[in-house]
Amino acid sequence: MKVAVVMGSDSDFEVMEDAIEVLRDFGIECEVSIISAHRTPELAMEFAKTAESRGIELIIAGAGCAAHLPGVIASLTTLPVIGVPIKAKPLKGIDALLSIVQMPPGIPVATVGINASKNAGLLAVQMLSLKYPELKEKIKNFRNEMKEKVIKKNKKLEEEGFKTFRS
Amino acid sequence: MKVAVVMGSDSDFEVMEDAIEVLRDFGIECEVSIISAHRTPELAMEFAKTAESRGIELIIAGAGCAAHLPGVIASLTTLPVIGVPIKAKPLKGIDALLSIVQMPPGIPVATVGINASKNAGLLAVQMLSLKYPELKEKIKNFRNEMKEKVIKKNKKLEEEGFKTFRS
Amino acid sequence: MKVAVVMGSDSDFEVMEDAIEVLRDFGIECEVSIISAHRTPELAMEFAKTAESRGIELIIAGAGCAAHLPGVIASLTTLPVIGVPIKAKPLKGIDALLSIVQMPPGIPVATVGINASKNAGLLAVQMLSLKYPELKEKIKNFRNEMKEKVIKKNKKLEEEGFKTFRS
Amino acid sequence: MKVAVVMGSDSDFEVMEDAIEVLRDFGIECEVSIISAHRTPELAMEFAKTAESRGIELIIAGAGCAAHLPGVIASLTTLPVIGVPIKAKPLKGIDALLSIVQMPPGIPVATVGINASKNAGLLAVQMLSLKYPELKEKIKNFRNEMKEKVIKKNKKLEEEGFKTFRS
Amino acid sequence: MKVAVVMGSDSDFEVMEDAIEVLRDFGIECEVSIISAHRTPELAMEFAKTAESRGIELIIAGAGCAAHLPGVIASLTTLPVIGVPIKAKPLKGIDALLSIVQMPPGIPVATVGINASKNAGLLAVQMLSLKYPELKEKIKNFRNEMKEKVIKKNKKLEEEGFKTFRS
Amino acid sequence: MKVAVVMGSDSDFEVMEDAIEVLRDFGIECEVSIISAHRTPELAMEFAKTAESRGIELIIAGAGCAAHLPGVIASLTTLPVIGVPIKAKPLKGIDALLSIVQMPPGIPVATVGINASKNAGLLAVQMLSLKYPELKEKIKNFRNEMKEKVIKKNKKLEEEGFKTFRS
Amino acid sequence: MKVAVVMGSDSDFEVMEDAIEVLRDFGIECEVSIISAHRTPELAMEFAKTAESRGIELIIAGAGCAAHLPGVIASLTTLPVIGVPIKAKPLKGIDALLSIVQMPPGIPVATVGINASKNAGLLAVQMLSLKYPELKEKIKNFRNEMKEKVIKKNKKLEEEGFKTFRS
Amino acid sequence: MKVAVVMGSDSDFEVMEDAIEVLRDFGIECEVSIISAHRTPELAMEFAKTAESRGIELIIAGAGCAAHLPGVIASLTTLPVIGVPIKAKPLKGIDALLSIVQMPPGIPVATVGINASKNAGLLAVQMLSLKYPELKEKIKNFRNEMKEKVIKKNKKLEEEGFKTFRS
Repeated sequence: MKVAVVMGSDSDFEVMEDAIEVLRDFGIECEVSIISAHRTPELAMEFAKTAESRGIELIIAGAGCAAHLPGVIASLTTLPVIGVPIKAKPLKGIDALLSIVQMPPGIPVATVGINASKNAGLLAVQMLSLKYPELKEKIKNFRNEMKEKVIKKNKKLEEEGFKTFRS
Repeated sequence: MKVAVVMGSDSDFEVMEDAIEVLRDFGIECEVSIISAHRTPELAMEFAKTAESRGIELIIAGAGCAAHLPGVIASLTTLPVIGVPIKAKPLKGIDALLSIVQMPPGIPVATVGINASKNAGLLAVQMLSLKYPELKEKIKNFRNEMKEKVIKKNKKLEEEGFKTFRS
Repeated sequence: MKVAVVMGSDSDFEVMEDAIEVLRDFGIECEVSIISAHRTPELAMEFAKTAESRGIELIIAGAGCAAHLPGVIASLTTLPVIGVPIKAKPLKGIDALLSIVQMPPGIPVATVGINASKNAGLLAVQMLSLKYPELKEKIKNFRNEMKEKVIKKNKKLEEEGFKTFRS
Repeated sequence: MKVAVVMGSDSDFEVMEDAIEVLRDFGIECEVSIISAHRTPELAMEFAKTAESRGIELIIAGAGCAAHLPGVIASLTTLPVIGVPIKAKPLKGIDALLSIVQMPPGIPVATVGINASKNAGLLAVQMLSLKYPELKEKIKNFRNEMKEKVIKKNKKLEEEGFKTFRS
Repeated sequence: MKVAVVMGSDSDFEVMEDAIEVLRDFGIECEVSIISAHRTPELAMEFAKTAESRGIELIIAGAGCAAHLPGVIASLTTLPVIGVPIKAKPLKGIDALLSIVQMPPGIPVATVGINASKNAGLLAVQMLSLKYPELKEKIKNFRNEMKEKVIKKNKKLEEEGFKTFRS
Repeated sequence: MKVAVVMGSDSDFEVMEDAIEVLRDFGIECEVSIISAHRTPELAMEFAKTAESRGIELIIAGAGCAAHLPGVIASLTTLPVIGVPIKAKPLKGIDALLSIVQMPPGIPVATVGINASKNAGLLAVQMLSLKYPELKEKIKNFRNEMKEKVIKKNKKLEEEGFKTFRS
Repeated sequence: MKVAVVMGSDSDFEVMEDAIEVLRDFGIECEVSIISAHRTPELAMEFAKTAESRGIELIIAGAGCAAHLPGVIASLTTLPVIGVPIKAKPLKGIDALLSIVQMPPGIPVATVGINASKNAGLLAVQMLSLKYPELKEKIKNFRNEMKEKVIKKNKKLEEEGFKTFRS
Repeated sequence: MKVAVVMGSDSDFEVMEDAIEVLRDFGIECEVSIISAHRTPELAMEFAKTAESRGIELIIAGAGCAAHLPGVIASLTTLPVIGVPIKAKPLKGIDALLSIVQMPPGIPVATVGINASKNAGLLAVQMLSLKYPELKEKIKNFRNEMKEKVIKKNKKLEEEGFKTFRS
């Protein structure tokens, strides 16, 4: 199991780290690169065209502003591409969201929320679980842990009363 | 290979038909239903919880306005869920887009563009191709056909000259 | 008189506290819980379906981003549901507002302004006053106090002159 | 049981009719008026101040553009006020939505979606059911009918197949 | 020459102070009050209805969020009303702008930019100069001073060179 | 009493006609011109600089898209300038609204709603009534007529019942 | 003098025709092609990389939705690239505008208004006039013609009076 | 080679400095001024009308809010004008972007992203390279440096591993 995580700029690293962490937690190998659709267009092409032959099974691409990277990669590979719109000043990621999600008919990008790199990682895991059923159990465990955390918070709230409760 | 296509209202059918057509063209079995997250919440739950056991491998969910259906389904299954924001008056689908894509950490929905049901179908095919490599060839053929169409248009444009050319 | 206040995440607590304070000030019993429509969907269902039998008369639900909680609860109970869109980065609550207010025909959510949890509390009091007329007097007192504060500010402004006046 | 339905202009009638129909269907008496917060401000005040004494138990107010009517009425009565933002050119109701929902702390308006006058009617019924429990049964019946319609659509879809199905 | 400056809350004072300063600089008498369209509706009515008889010649009204104050006042007086949308979290004043500027046909509000209280003051001066021609000279002086400032900046820029220039 | 009505293009005429009609109804002389801030900049300058000497007392300027005309004129005259944002495809006037209302400190434009040329005319009348008190009576009559129309509609509604009432 | 006009789809032809007409009117040779950044990525690369060697001096690129074409081309050539955001349902070109104008530092695209293909043509002419001074005279003539048209409209307006004037 | 960089206010200097730096780096002479379209309209006219005779070959104009400066200049010269929308509170530059890019047919402004003054400088260089081919080599070098930086970042990432990598 191998996923490529690629981002348009090293300033996106802080956001994209969440996706990498999720993939590692699920035991998925992870190739990380910084590739700009605009500053390094040949690199982007080469990356996309050779991804499958390097054993990559799907690609997570994050970019901000006029975020072309996920779409450009998607046009050059048939691997599924997950797009992460990165929040950047001054439009807070709404430009990146529209630049990624509004792809023309024929070349889809699976878009997650603005800065939602953790969800990009989880979506990758769910996609891979189609082929690797062993991941399903792990996803269920992950979800149960999330539930337990909510239930604990409620218990804390009940015990402490709302006056002293602080998240 | 089996995909469920579900939509919040029968008025979404015209848009969601494109996804169904794509799936059929790629030889993928298709279960189609109309389920409202709000008018038929128990149906939505049952649908989502039993999808995997019915042999469904991924789900395409389309909804408009406060489009909760894709997220509600995603919270009740570990199958990948693709969300299609449906354009509806008066906000033209921007409400549906935000309601689908801005999911909280933990439960991702793979969102495509507003009314981009065709791309939802293609994204499903690309996801399934992780497991069913025979789909890869078909995707490449599909993409080549798209390219040929563009090349033909250019030839027509060159031959006719721009004055008489009409798409 | 009993109202349930529910929120999608403990990070919403700081905002939702205002609603709880208002309800307490008006002498209304208050059940507070943290329930995520997506991380704890079964909890949300159970909560909504059993609310009436637990003596709850109306529900205030706050959530951010793709804020499905109020709508999901509203679909599973006939109690009135008041929705509070929570401001969250990067879209400042406009996503939550649209996800809550743009409900499909059949299942309404009474939406208040972004982060307007105090108004949610007051709206709950006004709704309950339909059944419990003793609340009407209290609402009138509350409104009179608001008026008095404005009148005092004006007096201060008149006495001090605008040069030295600071709110 | 008596509800006032008020709208800013007779051009809003077509939208507000849905609320009136719902109220009649649930056997609730209905006072309908056209009152402009701006063209007939004294009328609006008198309407709001005397509503309770006329036996009105809650108010549904629809308005477009700089939609002040619901807020102006809410400031002059302690009855619950439901606001319906009316879609009008050129901003499609987003101006009315913000003008209604973003009320300042102290004076809430229970806002529904743009043009969602049917939901305003249903919300009124749910609020009244706090005091008049006989409405609860009717709401449940109404919801069951909605469910049945969805189930019928699915049957039709199953029988006809997606190729011939038309909503 | 007498102008009323009114604002919805004392938290608007910091912004509205600019208008007051401008009016004083131009030698115009200024009545300042804090009046909420929603918390003190009767005060707002009385203020608007008696403004002319108190010698007020025009009104500057500032408000945030669902900013109804300028429109409510405009509906109750035939004096010109200038509206100042106040920036407030989370929508940054876009809600106030639309609530003020999108008035229905019949009752205009002269709207200035978000937080542009200084321009509201200058607009008031320009309106008054219709009746009081002595103000024209002052406006021309004010504009000349603005021009001189820009010219000085350019000189500074020329002398210092762009490397050391800091505004 | 003389007002100039100027518009950026003859395609704005249909909208600006409302302002002209209002001015004529109030007996105000009206100079109408088509001047583009961009296609005829010298004309715009000359128009603005000589307006006062031609006896013009205030200017109504309508423009669409990057609507610079009102601001350009306002910078070249000390007469009050009323700006009318004209709705134009594809942004429906939101571009014109922001281009007109968001003027920098120093040069105000009194902005009305999108396409609200009728309100521009009425605002002009209200401004002129500062100097020409005879207009006050006419404004009051105009407002009374508006009220009467609303009252008539209500009577019609009462007599016909809501079932047959059509505006 | 040679300019390439390229568009993402033949459905953009109707809009892009205006740019072609302008170029022809100014006597500039024009190469027209349909190239999709996503459906024909290799074509886009080849086009951009060889443009200069084909004698192209600047490129006008139009695209809708997630409009990557202008940016992708700009990243592969040092010729100036003018981007035309094409209006397309449902977001009316605001997605295309942001996808084109919000380019990252290093690779600019000279963006014109939504559907403003005529202005793209004129901007190209103005850019070329840096090198080919003979174009300057033509631009001045073109601008004079625009002025004359406005002046004629004003004459017509003056002669006919506003009552009968129709653009 | 000479470019004029002009901005509406000295507070725009910090942003516009990037353009000036780029021009200097490419050896292009640079005339810097502060000119407000509204506070110094005659200066703006004179600047625009005489630019060509002063040897200016193109103009970069930055402005915020109702950003008229680039359009006003463009209407008075046939030199190419590049517009830089400056981010300013509270609308973050979206008002400036629309005020600059949505120019009417006939007078184009080459618009770059919000605050993208560096790209304005680079666009100027690319335009000038039409006439001064010696700039082409420099642009290629500049782009190669950008590529090298990205490649170095990737090497650092590979060597350090993602855990310790910090941009």
